[in-house]
Amino acid sequence: MEQYHVSADFIFGTMATDSRRLGYVRAELAGMSHRYRMEPLAPQPGEPVRLFVTLGPSIVADQVCVYYTTDGSEPHGERGQPAPGSHVAHGQRLSSHWDTLLWGYAEEWAIDLPPQPADTVVRYRIEAWLREGNGSLWYSEVIGATAGDGSVVGQPGPGDHYLHEMGYEFNLTFFRRPRTCAYRVGDEGVPGWLDDALIYHVFIDRFHPGPGRQFANPPTPMGIYGGTLAGVTSNLDYIASLGTTTIWLSPLFPSPSHHGYDATDYYSVEPRLGTMADLQTLIAAAHDRGMRVIFDYTANHFSNRHPIFQRAISDPHSPERDWFIFTRYPDLYVSFFGVAELPQLDLDYPPARQFMIDAARYWLEQGVDGYRLDYTIGPSHDFWTLFRAAMRAVRPDCVLIGEAVDTAEVLRSYVGRLDGCLDFLLLQAIRRFFAFDEIRASQFAVFLNRHLNYFPPGFSLPTFLDNHDMNRFLWVVRGDTRRLRLAALCQYTLPHPPVLYYGTEVGLSQRLDVRHADGSGHPEESRLPMRWGDEQDQELLDFYRQLGALRRATTAVWRGKRTITHIDDQRGHLAYTCTAQDQTWLVVLNNASQAGVIPVPPGRWTVVLPSQTAELVAGKVALPPYGGAILRREA
Amino acid sequence: MEQYHVSADFIFGTMATDSRRLGYVRAELAGMSHRYRMEPLAPQPGEPVRLFVTLGPSIVADQVCVYYTTDGSEPHGERGQPAPGSHVAHGQRLSSHWDTLLWGYAEEWAIDLPPQPADTVVRYRIEAWLREGNGSLWYSEVIGATAGDGSVVGQPGPGDHYLHEMGYEFNLTFFRRPRTCAYRVGDEGVPGWLDDALIYHVFIDRFHPGPGRQFANPPTPMGIYGGTLAGVTSNLDYIASLGTTTIWLSPLFPSPSHHGYDATDYYSVEPRLGTMADLQTLIAAAHDRGMRVIFDYTANHFSNRHPIFQRAISDPHSPERDWFIFTRYPDLYVSFFGVAELPQLDLDYPPARQFMIDAARYWLEQGVDGYRLDYTIGPSHDFWTLFRAAMRAVRPDCVLIGEAVDTAEVLRSYVGRLDGCLDFLLLQAIRRFFAFDEIRASQFAVFLNRHLNYFPPGFSLPTFLDNHDMNRFLWVVRGDTRRLRLAALCQYTLPHPPVLYYGTEVGLSQRLDVRHADGSGHPEESRLPMRWGDEQDQELLDFYRQLGALRRATTAVWRGKRTITHIDDQRGHLAYTCTAQDQTWLVVLNNASQAGVIPVPPGRWTVVLPSQTAELVAGKVALPPYGGAILRREA
Repeated sequence: MEQYHVSADFIFGTMATDSRRLGYVRAELAGMSHRYRMEPLAPQPGEPVRLFVTLGPSIVADQVCVYYTTDGSEPHGERGQPAPGSHVAHGQRLSSHWDTLLWGYAEEWAIDLPPQPADTVVRYRIEAWLREGNGSLWYSEVIGATAGDGSVVGQPGPGDHYLHEMGYEFNLTFFRRPRTCAYRVGDEGVPGWLDDALIYHVFIDRFHPGPGRQFANPPTPMGIYGGTLAGVTSNLDYIASLGTTTIWLSPLFPSPSHHGYDATDYYSVEPRLGTMADLQTLIAAAHDRGMRVIFDYTANHFSNRHPIFQRAISDPHSPERDWFIFTRYPDLYVSFFGVAELPQLDLDYPPARQFMIDAARYWLEQGVDGYRLDYTIGPSHDFWTLFRAAMRAVRPDCVLIGEAVDTAEVLRSYVGRLDGCLDFLLLQAIRRFFAFDEIRASQFAVFLNRHLNYFPPGFSLPTFLDNHDMNRFLWVVRGDTRRLRLAALCQYTLPHPPVLYYGTEVGLSQRLDVRHADGSGHPEESRLPMRWGDEQDQELLDFYRQLGALRRATTAVWRGKRTITHIDDQRGHLAYTCTAQDQTWLVVLNNASQAGVIPVPPGRWTVVLPSQTAELVAGKVALPPYGGAILRREA
Repeated sequence: MEQYHVSADFIFGTMATDSRRLGYVRAELAGMSHRYRMEPLAPQPGEPVRLFVTLGPSIVADQVCVYYTTDGSEPHGERGQPAPGSHVAHGQRLSSHWDTLLWGYAEEWAIDLPPQPADTVVRYRIEAWLREGNGSLWYSEVIGATAGDGSVVGQPGPGDHYLHEMGYEFNLTFFRRPRTCAYRVGDEGVPGWLDDALIYHVFIDRFHPGPGRQFANPPTPMGIYGGTLAGVTSNLDYIASLGTTTIWLSPLFPSPSHHGYDATDYYSVEPRLGTMADLQTLIAAAHDRGMRVIFDYTANHFSNRHPIFQRAISDPHSPERDWFIFTRYPDLYVSFFGVAELPQLDLDYPPARQFMIDAARYWLEQGVDGYRLDYTIGPSHDFWTLFRAAMRAVRPDCVLIGEAVDTAEVLRSYVGRLDGCLDFLLLQAIRRFFAFDEIRASQFAVFLNRHLNYFPPGFSLPTFLDNHDMNRFLWVVRGDTRRLRLAALCQYTLPHPPVLYYGTEVGLSQRLDVRHADGSGHPEESRLPMRWGDEQDQELLDFYRQLGALRRATTAVWRGKRTITHIDDQRGHLAYTCTAQDQTWLVVLNNASQAGVIPVPPGRWTVVLPSQTAELVAGKVALPPYGGAILRREA
């Protein structure tokens, strides 16, 4: 075994370096940028809608308009004249500002759209042009058009990072059609059960092989360990004992890989994992215990072995060819991060879009309660708007949770289009504070305040300490469960639903690091098989069970009024209270290798749950190194 | 003579490269940034004032306040508690946004200050801190504090570019005291004579040696040619014949250099140039002809031979030591662009401030009508606010024009503090369009629109095609006077006062380029001696005289409603109308090496001034290559 090496996180890969961020920001600011900014973010019936657009310095235009439809069709038009069936709304200039980075003026424009009845899907396309002369038409959220002076004039949509990276860094030009955006009027908001959820994240092949069976022992963690749906079903009591309200199952469609993010069929179950009957048993048993089940759904791409792709590349005249974006037929095409095995679908092409909507609708009809949506930033917002409308029509209380490893602004752009997004930004801050010692308590506290303020109520941001794509938290802290408990204490006392990644609660860690400086590494090390029986860290498990029970009993409290009561950067101390429904709770965190004493606010307090020990004496809580506690104020 | 080489412009030196802009923007965005944003920009008596502040991702704070005084004293305070004599106003958070470049949240705050009577100087200092704990205090417009994570948490004030460059690129830390800002209530705005001005820019040593005398012939243009104040006086009729209303004289205080930007005394005239009596004669004679005279005034720095600096470095206990910022006494100190011969004054230090104000006041009392302020971004806005108040007290109609080679936002920050700024951004655009062929007609037109919209009425932005710090326009276009005339036609039909740099009107150019790729060059080549008599291009001179006369007769028109009537990027055509006082004028520009035909709007038009020839036939103007014309609509 190699030396214990912990790599830095590489969560936001496409934006991990200054130059990549600069490229992103330059492209975004230089061009015409809507970025789904609108008021209100989730329009209700009868509310007018204001769209915002920025014309960057490269956009040579003095007119802005929006073509839109309300009947589901594609909007069209040119130079302010809508095509038959489309409407037009003209923009007004609000203000201008100087952009030093791009060295020019940018203008802010607003376009007002009229109120619409409930369930209307407004599809729209933004265009800018110069009134005089016969110059270019400019579109928002379009990548790759290059101005005469060599500057990039379009900019990536949220889903174009990879293309954008390629285009910007390697000076390629990539042409896309004008991008259609959409919103649906009268979104019902997040179902209450998501607000109160505690989500357990199962990686099926690695969780449990089923009653009476053993895990296999493949030579590398790329191989098959043999976890099954029956293995999940047989451990539902275990899962429920953690306070779980919702089970997130990793992909379970037929697929050549152990992880399943490369499906070859969207209407059946991978035989290794079980049968359709096994799945129905699992869902029914979970529902019987009051737990929901959500799937991990990949709309952006599927396996190159999928019959649709096989038809597309084997027959140049096949209708399926248009489901993909070939740059040189049949061997070069747009794919997920350039991986040829994962061709990306053009979900703005109606048959491809319909396929992905139909398959997702099918599984809701089979009793699934919602989806974790893989690589959400791939498909367009127009796609997700229609996807959500279709899902809500089948199951009004289903949930759609995005996996958008992206900026806060991109995350917020899914308000009204999804129920929420996994909170990768909080993940980064939690790990920087509790695992990497990269930021101080005050920085973490200020981040948390600004972060929670940034998103509107009713948008869910499930929290997590790690997942299957990064080093486990316990690996980063070199097996120090005190630090894991402390981070979990914080995670479970935040407003949004906690996600617990299988194994974290029993001390499952890794043998090797997921990533070395040279780019090599062992990315599947964070997916080792679940520990069962004597292999489990019982103390840690007990703590997680208590934490889960407490969370279940107090979810509303953590959504209450949040106040920092103490910060000491030198000592690594942080304390905050939450107040709701006449209850006040206090969380004290000693994120330091020294024991610490943290003052509590006035009042009578009771320690409800320490991460290790906590002594309350004379208005102060004494905590061991990396200790924390949850306290309740007595009436 | 070396080959005819034309270098690219290097106007915005400190922000000429991506990496420098990035450094600037990062530092500005990461820290606490006020940037003199306020509403209104120039408060009148009885108007409340709202200040705006951005807390960047590096600012760990949740409280913002402003300490201020109204009696001229320095404001002080800490953590929301004002010191005796200071007041406090607390801020409110308006919104937050995600900053991708800095990878964090920034917050916008507003602080409201109460109305004040006329002439009150409100001096203020902005502070932020975290309510809990005992963390750092944060100030706006402060450079150099470094956070624990290595990020820059302050950011440069407009005057700190050089320091900032050094700090950012070479990772130095440079500490400054918190920066005081200021505004004066009830600024009277720009005197009408500046709105209608046509400014002739004289470089004294190079203009005329005086009656009966010849220019010297120094070996290089670093030497003395022998121009004098008497030489200016003896050619006032010539200057007036160009339509000049205002003469801008290059520095004339005693100085070891030919240019005079390194004064050794602020109360006398450089003997080479003449006597105090010569100066008084010049001013009186100009005034007799209805022309104003403005000085070129350098407050930021003076010569290291100035007695004050000499005292400062020769005696460590001298009171003058505090006029400068020594980093290692006595040999290392902050200086203009690091040039040791030009020590920078600390104009926030009261005696130094008073010195520079007193000297400027003295010359106004001698009859000078205002100042062109060299390196305006050096001294603080607080300094300029008090400087202006002092000047206005002496001469209510004097003008103060900044030389701020900086962003549009920085230029706008002088609204209410100066009468205007030389328009280096327009200079850049004009040269890119008319001389370098770097931008198309549509790009120039859109820039012009956005640029003119960005500044409030009543802030003057004098225009120019070249000056003493860059290649002359005629050099850039390789002596093609057609292109010079075309650019001048545009310049003289813009809203703001034109500045004509001596010699441009008679075809004065260069022998060598000011700058080579290796950084060497001949920066003084744009300051060659004036051409007189037969050496003058009489045709060009006649054109400039006609243009000047037309400008004098129509200044109000060009401030009127401005409309683009025609753009043709392929042909290089641009046309616009201006309408004011029941007059409509049209400017047509054929910026191409081919003859062109440009349509005119409906109506009866008369060609008033072609740059070469212009034939009006059947609703179109036929123009020769690089030809343009000014037309008037007949009633």
